[in-house]
Amino acid sequence: MPQRTYAVIGLGAIGLGMAQSLLRAGLKTIGCNRGPRPLETFAANGGQTTHNPAEAAARADVLFLAVVNAAQAEDVLFGQGGAARAMQAGDLVVNCVTVKPAFAVDMERRLAELGLLYLDAPVSGGPAQSAAGKLSIMASGSPEAFARAETGLKAVAAVVHRLGDEAGKGSAMKVVNQLLAGTHIAAAAEAMALGLRMGLDAGDVYKVITSAAANSWMFETRMKHVVSGDYTPLSAVDIFVKDLGIVSETTREQAMPAPLAAAALQQFVAAQARGLGREADAAVIKTFPGIELPRKKD
Amino acid sequence: MPQRTYAVIGLGAIGLGMAQSLLRAGLKTIGCNRGPRPLETFAANGGQTTHNPAEAAARADVLFLAVVNAAQAEDVLFGQGGAARAMQAGDLVVNCVTVKPAFAVDMERRLAELGLLYLDAPVSGGPAQSAAGKLSIMASGSPEAFARAETGLKAVAAVVHRLGDEAGKGSAMKVVNQLLAGTHIAAAAEAMALGLRMGLDAGDVYKVITSAAANSWMFETRMKHVVSGDYTPLSAVDIFVKDLGIVSETTREQAMPAPLAAAALQQFVAAQARGLGREADAAVIKTFPGIELPRKKD
Repeated sequence: MPQRTYAVIGLGAIGLGMAQSLLRAGLKTIGCNRGPRPLETFAANGGQTTHNPAEAAARADVLFLAVVNAAQAEDVLFGQGGAARAMQAGDLVVNCVTVKPAFAVDMERRLAELGLLYLDAPVSGGPAQSAAGKLSIMASGSPEAFARAETGLKAVAAVVHRLGDEAGKGSAMKVVNQLLAGTHIAAAAEAMALGLRMGLDAGDVYKVITSAAANSWMFETRMKHVVSGDYTPLSAVDIFVKDLGIVSETTREQAMPAPLAAAALQQFVAAQARGLGREADAAVIKTFPGIELPRKKD
Repeated sequence: MPQRTYAVIGLGAIGLGMAQSLLRAGLKTIGCNRGPRPLETFAANGGQTTHNPAEAAARADVLFLAVVNAAQAEDVLFGQGGAARAMQAGDLVVNCVTVKPAFAVDMERRLAELGLLYLDAPVSGGPAQSAAGKLSIMASGSPEAFARAETGLKAVAAVVHRLGDEAGKGSAMKVVNQLLAGTHIAAAAEAMALGLRMGLDAGDVYKVITSAAANSWMFETRMKHVVSGDYTPLSAVDIFVKDLGIVSETTREQAMPAPLAAAALQQFVAAQARGLGREADAAVIKTFPGIELPRKKD
């Protein structure tokens, strides 16, 4: 089997770890990013780097997309980035960006017109899991796309959920995932805020709820920020304005009511409106009036 | 120390297990219930039984209340049940019913006027935990109330969270707990419904979400009903109409917005309106249009 070349476009919270994981697996890997900082990091790891998506695409057989949103993915592949036209027939695009299922279906079709394979492959997990090569991937696509992706996926993921033979199913699962993730964070904040309002101690609420049937993974991880008063972002408020926006558009397109996700979106928008967009997503609790939140200890 | 007598009023899903646990711990225990069936069960276990709350109260030093709601608790203690006036100064009422914090505060005050102690002690856990003496209790009350409750609590609970020296804090924590529990069930149903609408397989959704950051204890336990198509109730839709109603009233009294819990309540009300009140709470998913739910296998 020929030694393939990999590229990762977008060396952010997820992409940098993916590129590092591919490199660590002994695969020839090019990192591509607009800003210089992550490129310096990746070069120091021994990776090849470029600012130019088309250059990365021309040299790669397998292109991982890890940019911020659908607009950037569109731009990298078909717009100014020019990556799609730089690739060769039979090459593969693995799209890890959270996008609407309809967008993934459209991407697969447009790339197929150029003879390119597409894997719809959004991820679950944060920077730590990505750096460790332990992402969880919700993937769908043709058997050919899966076959060509296999070596790369093994390098970056602990689990690959195979959800069907066409693009869209992976992104559909990611939408379901983000609906719950965002709703659980907003619910955790709402519950903690009510507890504080009623005079309960934040640490008591954390201890009781995390040991009870009302627990969620998001409550457990996010309410730590509230108890400690430290809103240093791992995942920011802005991310859930974006992702619950995708949920909102998807539910409308599917003609499916989603009242809890709609309410959760409004809470994150309210947080953004107060200038909290870049704080940890748990900062959504700061939108509640009339409570005193625990302060960070010096 | 004198051998105390215990009574449990309301031998339902939680109360019967509590009475059995007290008995198993070697404590003299009287079970009291309106309907005859649980009394027969408890008598067969070797317990003493009565239909009359005042009689149970007159013989008991420690009275556990495990009726359905605040109205029944009021009636048992101060209304037709006549239990409060039948007790002797220094005796203790342990109220395990989910009630508004303000109701618990009021109960403590009214019982104190009769010289009686009060422990605000709502529970978390279902019939299985109750039968095993492994409930989790969120308790607040005076040191004297805790001291007198100690032996009985040890018999019925695996964990007792001690949340303060006055009634109200235990019930406040239970309101926080039920806000999350109800919201998580409604969110789980919303997410699963959207997944089905987009053509995902229910088993795939269950597998991916329960292994991801979007998981909650409620998703994990409740969506099993949906995947298997079996809505035999452990906890019913009606319970969350009641408990999210308590959340709704409490948030209004506290002047605290709770948009997710409000949306969740409406979903359970919609399920009740469709005649699903007595099905498992996961049946809230049946309110979503345009999806085909998995059917129960014969």
